[in-house]
Amino acid sequence: MAATISTAKRRQLGRPVSIVGAGLSRFGAFRDMTTRDLFVEAFQDLIDHMDQGIDVEDIECGYIGNYSSDLFEGQGHTAPILADWLGMTPTPITRIENACASSGSALREGIMAIASGMYDVVLVGGVEKMTDLPTEGVTDVLASAADGLYEVPAGLTFPGIYGALAKAHMDRYETSLAHLAKVGIKNHTNGALNPKAQFNTTLLDMMERRKARAEQQGQPVPDWRDEMDFLNDPRANPWIAWPLRLYDCAPITDGASCVLLVSSEIANNFTDKPVHVVGTGQASGRPLHDAEELTSLSAAREAAAQAYAMAGVTPRDIQVAEVHDCFTIAEIIATEDLGFFEPGEGPRAVDEGRTALTGDRPINTSGGLKAKGHPVGASGVAQVIETFHQLRGEAGPRQVPNTNLELGLTHNVGGTGGTCVVNILRRG
Amino acid sequence: MAATISTAKRRQLGRPVSIVGAGLSRFGAFRDMTTRDLFVEAFQDLIDHMDQGIDVEDIECGYIGNYSSDLFEGQGHTAPILADWLGMTPTPITRIENACASSGSALREGIMAIASGMYDVVLVGGVEKMTDLPTEGVTDVLASAADGLYEVPAGLTFPGIYGALAKAHMDRYETSLAHLAKVGIKNHTNGALNPKAQFNTTLLDMMERRKARAEQQGQPVPDWRDEMDFLNDPRANPWIAWPLRLYDCAPITDGASCVLLVSSEIANNFTDKPVHVVGTGQASGRPLHDAEELTSLSAAREAAAQAYAMAGVTPRDIQVAEVHDCFTIAEIIATEDLGFFEPGEGPRAVDEGRTALTGDRPINTSGGLKAKGHPVGASGVAQVIETFHQLRGEAGPRQVPNTNLELGLTHNVGGTGGTCVVNILRRG
Repeated sequence: MAATISTAKRRQLGRPVSIVGAGLSRFGAFRDMTTRDLFVEAFQDLIDHMDQGIDVEDIECGYIGNYSSDLFEGQGHTAPILADWLGMTPTPITRIENACASSGSALREGIMAIASGMYDVVLVGGVEKMTDLPTEGVTDVLASAADGLYEVPAGLTFPGIYGALAKAHMDRYETSLAHLAKVGIKNHTNGALNPKAQFNTTLLDMMERRKARAEQQGQPVPDWRDEMDFLNDPRANPWIAWPLRLYDCAPITDGASCVLLVSSEIANNFTDKPVHVVGTGQASGRPLHDAEELTSLSAAREAAAQAYAMAGVTPRDIQVAEVHDCFTIAEIIATEDLGFFEPGEGPRAVDEGRTALTGDRPINTSGGLKAKGHPVGASGVAQVIETFHQLRGEAGPRQVPNTNLELGLTHNVGGTGGTCVVNILRRG
Repeated sequence: MAATISTAKRRQLGRPVSIVGAGLSRFGAFRDMTTRDLFVEAFQDLIDHMDQGIDVEDIECGYIGNYSSDLFEGQGHTAPILADWLGMTPTPITRIENACASSGSALREGIMAIASGMYDVVLVGGVEKMTDLPTEGVTDVLASAADGLYEVPAGLTFPGIYGALAKAHMDRYETSLAHLAKVGIKNHTNGALNPKAQFNTTLLDMMERRKARAEQQGQPVPDWRDEMDFLNDPRANPWIAWPLRLYDCAPITDGASCVLLVSSEIANNFTDKPVHVVGTGQASGRPLHDAEELTSLSAAREAAAQAYAMAGVTPRDIQVAEVHDCFTIAEIIATEDLGFFEPGEGPRAVDEGRTALTGDRPINTSGGLKAKGHPVGASGVAQVIETFHQLRGEAGPRQVPNTNLELGLTHNVGGTGGTCVVNILRRG
């Protein structure tokens, strides 16, 4: 990790950029809502929570991360339709697509648009409406983010791909099924503290509810004593793609997210508590069939190196992070790729509770993609929103205990590491 | 027009940006080529024509305009796959989507990425592989760039939509079918001088070939004397969506385009003849069902106003332009929206030959989308490439006669004006 960090060129923005507002829709399955409804809900949430208010007319430019309204809804050219629904026309607005890292990349475009001198106030959002299709259809749409020439025809789907990564990690290190399960338990514990989360409940509560339902229905009541019993039972937690089970996978989610970026010099016009973007990195990776190894994503290491170099910090300095846990194994690999733990040490860190809300390195305090939900195009900005709230000390019951919180990080992956975006944020 | 120009805020880039190289694939129907093959061909063309050469490793960032590899090929997350095929991994690369203005918007992201200080050397391209689907399928994919909630269910397709614009223009002004036909004749005349064009032939030649074929086959030989006879004959030029006929519509095209952008301060390391980006504008427009009028696109007027304000020039100063002639009526409307001619005067300008290669305001010297072809995601950058070549005096047989060529403009529309991007380029 240290070697990778030292090789990244230190890039700098022409002028600094800050985040001054954030809005999130509810995350879940909302059969009666479209992409535009979801985005309007997120935007309204942003408007409602701007410390000093904002006029829609003051927004000069917009970026929308969206993976595939084309395939999910049959709607292309989504960005100007959203501008219309927000009352933002004729403000320029552009859709950014990098699979599940779409809004991570959108944030970077917003950052550079301000740093370029062209704009002072930019809206960056993400949205995905996924639940119109049946689960198999969603799996196919997501699989189209892999390589359609070599991977999809071979039968690879995302659970299958991440199953292969998990198997490789288990083979190379002392990673067990229990380690994977513990990531899920932790993230559901955090999600239970997040009112916007799709799974706003602990796995223990879910287990108790399942037991109570069985009892009500006169069925045999399972003798689960704790979450591990629950997760080890294939009736409760069936295999999806070995070694991944149902509760190792992020759900299918409808949702939207947005943040307001401004030039730092005017940030105090909007809030007394801006959050500054101090580092940003993005890298591409070769498709999985060409990847050099399966226990790490090269694009994540490279994007992290860029972000650390730009911020002038090391992994040790990061106090809270949202990482791309589309599957439980993905969180473990992320914490290693980001340099939080040595390669192969990620599982032990989970075991020791170091990544819990009360640990020394809280990861996915929002519940992560796993429990908060994963509307793919919205996830990158949703991670930034959680970090924004943590750094401002307004994360409520899931606020990390560290009272000197200054630096947070987000890690957003597209596909199997075809794209990775890492951002580092500092409390203003 | 003057009023619109005066209302645009004058925006400026933190540092100037120049174009130092360009590459174009052949445009046409290539059944055996994929998106990646097409883009590699365009990139190889760029590499082959860099005045001082370029190492792929020196490219720091990439943007790809693409409307819907999702719907056309079932491939999402296209950008990092292209990076892999170009040998550019781990360089960050991002797909930009704004329907047929996708690479126009991509160019702006490249411009701002450099102006932001983050990067000095950026590749911006566009690509679309359209011909895998049957024509009806392509029509459906393109229709998804309209509003899927209100327009598509009402049966609107793009020929239908532009037919409505044509009818409105005919009702309001003295626009005739002959005016529309003359736009096509002019653009095919230009396309005949462009070896990369899908229709590298004049309509007169097409007509003569049709006559010769009829004669060979012992069929009755039509008595067409000129292109107008040919275009007036529904056997040669059937109605598509009244008042538009076949030769009023841009074809379905496979193709790719790319340019190399650099910070102007290092432009001379790459070429003695850089072309500078002096103005850029982008605006969103409401969907057609909400448009205030049908004889003009509000986003085009707004984007033009922004670009003129930034460049500090007026429509009169523009000496050559590539405009978005997805249908012949679209070119006429574009020349009015850009302020080249007063509203309603566009048809007369065509009549008088003012927009021909030898006229005082040459439009679509490349053949335009009409004859050069319209691989939708590639068209915005392809327009920039034609302007780059004109300003450098290297457009060969289609070089405009003006020997003091300094300023060129590109006008790229997404959907029915949901997005418009206007760029102004100056010879270095």
